[in-house]
Amino acid sequence: MRLSRFFLPILKENPKEAEIVSHRLMLRAGMMRQEAAGIYAWLPLGFRVLKKIEQIVREEQDRAGALELLMPTLQLADLWRESGRYDAYGPEMLRISDRHKRELLYGPTNEEMITEIFRAYVKSYRNLPLNLYHIQWKFRDEQRPRFGVMRGREFLMKDAYSFDIDEAAARRSYNRMFVAYLRTFARMGLKAIPMRAETGPIGGDLSHEFIVLAETGESGVFCNSDVLNLPIPPDDVDYDGDLTPIIKQWTSVYAATEDVHDAARYEREVPADKRVNTRGIEVGQIFYFGTKYSDAMKALVAGPNGVDVPIHGGSYGVGVSRLVGAIIEACHDDAGIKWPEAVAPFTAVILNLKQGDAAVDGACEKLYRELQAKGVDVLYDDTDQRAGAKFAAADLIGIPWQILVGPKGLAEGKLEVKQRSDGSRENLSPAEVVAKIAG
Amino acid sequence: MRLSRFFLPILKENPKEAEIVSHRLMLRAGMMRQEAAGIYAWLPLGFRVLKKIEQIVREEQDRAGALELLMPTLQLADLWRESGRYDAYGPEMLRISDRHKRELLYGPTNEEMITEIFRAYVKSYRNLPLNLYHIQWKFRDEQRPRFGVMRGREFLMKDAYSFDIDEAAARRSYNRMFVAYLRTFARMGLKAIPMRAETGPIGGDLSHEFIVLAETGESGVFCNSDVLNLPIPPDDVDYDGDLTPIIKQWTSVYAATEDVHDAARYEREVPADKRVNTRGIEVGQIFYFGTKYSDAMKALVAGPNGVDVPIHGGSYGVGVSRLVGAIIEACHDDAGIKWPEAVAPFTAVILNLKQGDAAVDGACEKLYRELQAKGVDVLYDDTDQRAGAKFAAADLIGIPWQILVGPKGLAEGKLEVKQRSDGSRENLSPAEVVAKIAG
Repeated sequence: MRLSRFFLPILKENPKEAEIVSHRLMLRAGMMRQEAAGIYAWLPLGFRVLKKIEQIVREEQDRAGALELLMPTLQLADLWRESGRYDAYGPEMLRISDRHKRELLYGPTNEEMITEIFRAYVKSYRNLPLNLYHIQWKFRDEQRPRFGVMRGREFLMKDAYSFDIDEAAARRSYNRMFVAYLRTFARMGLKAIPMRAETGPIGGDLSHEFIVLAETGESGVFCNSDVLNLPIPPDDVDYDGDLTPIIKQWTSVYAATEDVHDAARYEREVPADKRVNTRGIEVGQIFYFGTKYSDAMKALVAGPNGVDVPIHGGSYGVGVSRLVGAIIEACHDDAGIKWPEAVAPFTAVILNLKQGDAAVDGACEKLYRELQAKGVDVLYDDTDQRAGAKFAAADLIGIPWQILVGPKGLAEGKLEVKQRSDGSRENLSPAEVVAKIAG
Repeated sequence: MRLSRFFLPILKENPKEAEIVSHRLMLRAGMMRQEAAGIYAWLPLGFRVLKKIEQIVREEQDRAGALELLMPTLQLADLWRESGRYDAYGPEMLRISDRHKRELLYGPTNEEMITEIFRAYVKSYRNLPLNLYHIQWKFRDEQRPRFGVMRGREFLMKDAYSFDIDEAAARRSYNRMFVAYLRTFARMGLKAIPMRAETGPIGGDLSHEFIVLAETGESGVFCNSDVLNLPIPPDDVDYDGDLTPIIKQWTSVYAATEDVHDAARYEREVPADKRVNTRGIEVGQIFYFGTKYSDAMKALVAGPNGVDVPIHGGSYGVGVSRLVGAIIEACHDDAGIKWPEAVAPFTAVILNLKQGDAAVDGACEKLYRELQAKGVDVLYDDTDQRAGAKFAAADLIGIPWQILVGPKGLAEGKLEVKQRSDGSRENLSPAEVVAKIAG
């Protein structure tokens, strides 16, 4: 993408409404724009990050055997009356009346609707286990939306729902999602630690939150530093096999948010030199809630003995739009964002340091074409801004690889490559640059 | 994908609420489920088609130089008061009040919001032309939603918006979208004919609808049969070049919906043996509306002489979810859907005609792995249904290539390949099957 043809409205000033760094940087980097309290438009740079995150989430759900579908944003109020949550949900639910005065709502989550879909079609244990997910916009009418996409009202969530014949099978489904989440967040370049959690309005008695460590996080976190170095399950983890050793490994090391922190156990189990007390951001949560919805909504299947039984369910959320903010909270410095490569809006940016100089323009164009031909997502800053402004913009928007092309280096056949993550610099020939970035 | 692990709730009965063939087939094939009047959940099979259509639309928008962003589904009522459309829009607009009694609405289209975004950042003609698009759910509260996804209330639309310094430049932007639309629909295997159209509530004085011919279509269509054989602009069409010859070629041949049909001109210009009078379905519409929104909403840029002028705008819609229905209307027979390969939920389906027979199971597994390794989207019917039921299901869901694997053929080293589009059959070795389908 040529920057001269891109839409990247960078702000020079720090927006005063932004209280946290991710909100400030997303506004400054031209990633998004507030359209109403807690409701954002994703500008092209932010949209690219959102899509990359969404795609990683999708691939790992698919790998774990979940099936994607797509439920609508609006739901019938009557569906929520069946589960008893219509009145219980409170003012965070956006209630809507259509032209015929039918009561609708903007879905804040989908346990009811997926249970209704399930019970319409699935009648036998032989069709289980089943895990259905979607990635769709949700709405929660927060009393005080703030922190940008970290606590918006309209937000993108991946929510999966598992259906099993009994608790043992449901726990296997739960474990599959647990492992999928470890892989999902690791692929985004994050350290996300599973922590035992309260179940809240979803219900049930088993839940884990996945918490990204960031000093600016919303909750206090206590953990054993060993948990930071546990191995992530590999690409070819066998989701049909026994996952309990992985789960045990991750849940036996102490890690808890302040809500459920057990100070006595922490001091007993964690050696003093391994105690980490920091802050974190929730980016996903998984629940096993048993028959809570299947009892209320009569989602029954015939068991092996022919008798109808309510299915055992779980639900599994990832905050897709929230992750954009969470990654920035975990990956930034004073100059701007430092995207992990897997979620970066572009992998590399070419900075033409003397636009209009035939040799420099030619070298940039050639490099741009070669990187594109290798499938690299590359941005080419071909604007007539001065070099200093190009450096600042590249640091701000956080592209992992900056390639500086100027007359001096070119005279020696060299380009300068700067890695945004650690600021390291190298002088390389154009061919070496292509090999390094596309390799 | 193994069918035994997929979620494909095929209905045996014809659903009585479905008045048209696409609605009936989408319900029967387990593609979607109605959640409220005009509001659908996309089940996994339907979701796969929706995503393939969306991706073709995206690729052709990108190719034409449009930039993708994503605006939220909910908008502030005040934004629509600026343009004067809040009151004008009528009962089709879903109006919402949040917990603080702020007036919101579920966006039926985005001219106002994109104009607000544009004016916030773009101040000079030097940043033009600009074309921004998104693919997002919209809501129109139809008095009588029907025909399934063809006239739903919650629907997925691609809408692009162009910004130019004057009418001449705006017409060039219009032409780019015109050409992109020709390519988009052709890639989906459709004959979509551009026809001069009325502008309606969007405003302006220049508009074309793109109409897919189908005998079950919603509007009458009159055209010269020559228009059916015009060449589609190629992959490498130069969007920076002069597109007027392509536009002239497509607009000089008579083609009109009954709304704007000129019987006298039709009879004068079209030889009797080339007159086609059929029906069609609108799948896209493009508009040039000049300064209608930029005047009302003060979207001004400094021109070359330093004087602020209102930008000239256009908007360009594609009914992404509607296309799923439109393609079925154009591509089906009595047995079910006949997906064009580019939008098919799976490219091929392997029918195991004797599940449990070691040789047949082994041959199916091997073929399944080989096709997957070649990147073919393949469904493997590994259920214990009898052969007749597998044939009927494969015809119903419309996968382009059916591969029949049974003991008799295998004894001779052959599989049978049936092409869904024309019913033709061939006996081929497994290696030939892979070469034919993956080739």
